[in-house]
Amino acid sequence: MSININRIKENLEYVGNTFNSGSEGYNRLAFSKEEKDAINWLEEELRNNGISVRRDSIGNLFARIGPEDKPVYAFGSHLDTVKNGGLYDGALGVMAALECLLQLKEQNSQHTAYELVCLVGEEGNPLGGTFGSRVITGQVNSDDLDDDILKAAALTKEQIKDASNTIQNYAGFIELHIEQGTVLENNGNKTGIVTNIAGIVRNHITVLGEAGHSGTMPMEYRKDALVMASEIVQYINSEVRKLDDGTVATVGQLEVRPNAATIIPGEVEMTFEVRSGNKDRLESFPEEVLSWIKENYDVKIKPGVTKPTNSMSDKIIETIEQAAAKLDLPTMRMMSGANHDTNTLAPFMDTGMIFVPSIDGISHNPAEKSDWKDIENAVNIMLETLQSLEK
Amino acid sequence: MSININRIKENLEYVGNTFNSGSEGYNRLAFSKEEKDAINWLEEELRNNGISVRRDSIGNLFARIGPEDKPVYAFGSHLDTVKNGGLYDGALGVMAALECLLQLKEQNSQHTAYELVCLVGEEGNPLGGTFGSRVITGQVNSDDLDDDILKAAALTKEQIKDASNTIQNYAGFIELHIEQGTVLENNGNKTGIVTNIAGIVRNHITVLGEAGHSGTMPMEYRKDALVMASEIVQYINSEVRKLDDGTVATVGQLEVRPNAATIIPGEVEMTFEVRSGNKDRLESFPEEVLSWIKENYDVKIKPGVTKPTNSMSDKIIETIEQAAAKLDLPTMRMMSGANHDTNTLAPFMDTGMIFVPSIDGISHNPAEKSDWKDIENAVNIMLETLQSLEK
Repeated sequence: MSININRIKENLEYVGNTFNSGSEGYNRLAFSKEEKDAINWLEEELRNNGISVRRDSIGNLFARIGPEDKPVYAFGSHLDTVKNGGLYDGALGVMAALECLLQLKEQNSQHTAYELVCLVGEEGNPLGGTFGSRVITGQVNSDDLDDDILKAAALTKEQIKDASNTIQNYAGFIELHIEQGTVLENNGNKTGIVTNIAGIVRNHITVLGEAGHSGTMPMEYRKDALVMASEIVQYINSEVRKLDDGTVATVGQLEVRPNAATIIPGEVEMTFEVRSGNKDRLESFPEEVLSWIKENYDVKIKPGVTKPTNSMSDKIIETIEQAAAKLDLPTMRMMSGANHDTNTLAPFMDTGMIFVPSIDGISHNPAEKSDWKDIENAVNIMLETLQSLEK
Repeated sequence: MSININRIKENLEYVGNTFNSGSEGYNRLAFSKEEKDAINWLEEELRNNGISVRRDSIGNLFARIGPEDKPVYAFGSHLDTVKNGGLYDGALGVMAALECLLQLKEQNSQHTAYELVCLVGEEGNPLGGTFGSRVITGQVNSDDLDDDILKAAALTKEQIKDASNTIQNYAGFIELHIEQGTVLENNGNKTGIVTNIAGIVRNHITVLGEAGHSGTMPMEYRKDALVMASEIVQYINSEVRKLDDGTVATVGQLEVRPNAATIIPGEVEMTFEVRSGNKDRLESFPEEVLSWIKENYDVKIKPGVTKPTNSMSDKIIETIEQAAAKLDLPTMRMMSGANHDTNTLAPFMDTGMIFVPSIDGISHNPAEKSDWKDIENAVNIMLETLQSLEK
């Protein structure tokens, strides 16, 4: 049994081109009409193939074949995109899962259970990313959510409560996704098997200087917040490179105040994000950097998002490797620097991820691309893996 | 004869509080209704005191006593403010000029000419700062101006042409202004006598990196535009400090693109401003820095505003010093780091500036402040100077 790559391609392109609110790239933002329409399309596609579908109160989709009461290795991804995103991020994993489920249904006896899952609101959004997986694992307290933000997402607190903490009968979860980096490309476009997903620790740093007239304030009296912020950016960059253990650190967002050519910057606010697959490092590196910053500058520090790093299940990693070996397809183990719904699910069940090489590592961008041969290999490995796991 | 400090205070506070469009600080933006109303108030105040007033086609105000045909040392400043500005910047010089003119009219024979000048649009604005003085000295080509910007300023090309290149019968121009820095405060609050006004060379630098996912792009493959821009900010700051000749350099404005916590900055655009009273330095320093930047980074550079540095007239500087000595008031010579209408007028006539100490150097800010005793001293020196010059 092997998958039909043309059907995946057709479905992916149909959804990308049909449900798109923007003119640049692909736009199916979390909780948008386009995301809903795309999931409704998936539901119809499944029903047309005789597969029953369950939707929970926040829109997550579950489609199971075989016995309902048996713990299952579920598989899937998400259909929302970032603004001006690419064709593959999320949607490829859903189309791969659909293809696997259709193949398995054709071949399957009534005795083996398989389940496709499509989760809502995975990309960064005002309710927080990986929303669907956080709700079903009971990690979202609806009382903490802002009414206006809920309204904009067309969700109510009741809907969130109803979908909360509802996972049961799952042995595990497997997600196929594009790599969004260049590790696989730099290693001959093997299929990636994720060993662990990097955790994230984000802080917001405000550097306090003194605004002043750029003409009348001599250099020696200045407290230029941007000069200080630049030293901090340099420090972060040089310190993280010393670690050489895959930990990355980024100042991606920076605002100068008041931000005028003729005014010495009085304040600079910036994000300081650390990602690491090493649990201890993920704690210690941000702490070390922030304590150096506090010693040397007048700053305000506000903690932001924190996501733990999680390991994938050895059983699933090994099953994927064996499945690929059976198909004579090369794989390599790697860390995922990006976060995924799988990371949210990992503390609650066995998890695994299969990565498809990304061309030039481009993602969250209309130019996002993967080779169809690489996709075909990865989805075949996934189908073989699902069959092996359920044996 | 000495000036009436209470009248200056009353006029300054009346104009500040009456003609104000904002709720924070003082708002009489260039070409706004508030700027126009304030100049109209000045016109009425002069006419009520029996002084004839001429307004040119762009709104500049000229009020002369004594013979019309005799070259005169004019004096004045501007009534517009920056957004959320202070009480003193510009307006103090106009109220000082008004006070001097009223005193001189009381005492004056018909044979000596004195002229107050109030210039429009001095602060940074879409038509460019020091607008009134640039127009009357023929430095604005109305055909180069954008129609929408003109419309927003309620000006026509014809009005600008009619006011262009109209200065005549001026021996010189003297402007009293707050220092907007801390040099005088650090020197016992003497009255400042400006020797020269710093020139400005501004460039817009765009640093080109490569955007990427903050989780999936290893440190060694990154081309982070913000890390590079930080190195440039550091370089500018350390190089200008080595000069130690009063030259200042500022990166006041900086934009990160796309500016998201999870995306490695792909592009950074920033202003690089140099101000110096040394003509050669004003040319050579930006050139040296930009050539270092071009050697080391992938950048686009767009030249911005350039304003030459100009010296004040020795005759006026010495006359101010003698006037202060006669009144037994201490003065010190200094450079002006800020630009003023006087800098625009300097190539066309003798010029001089009298600086009032600024408390904590704060300016372009609601907290802008000067001591009334320091103001009284400076305006008395100005009145004495005007009489000496016309003798």
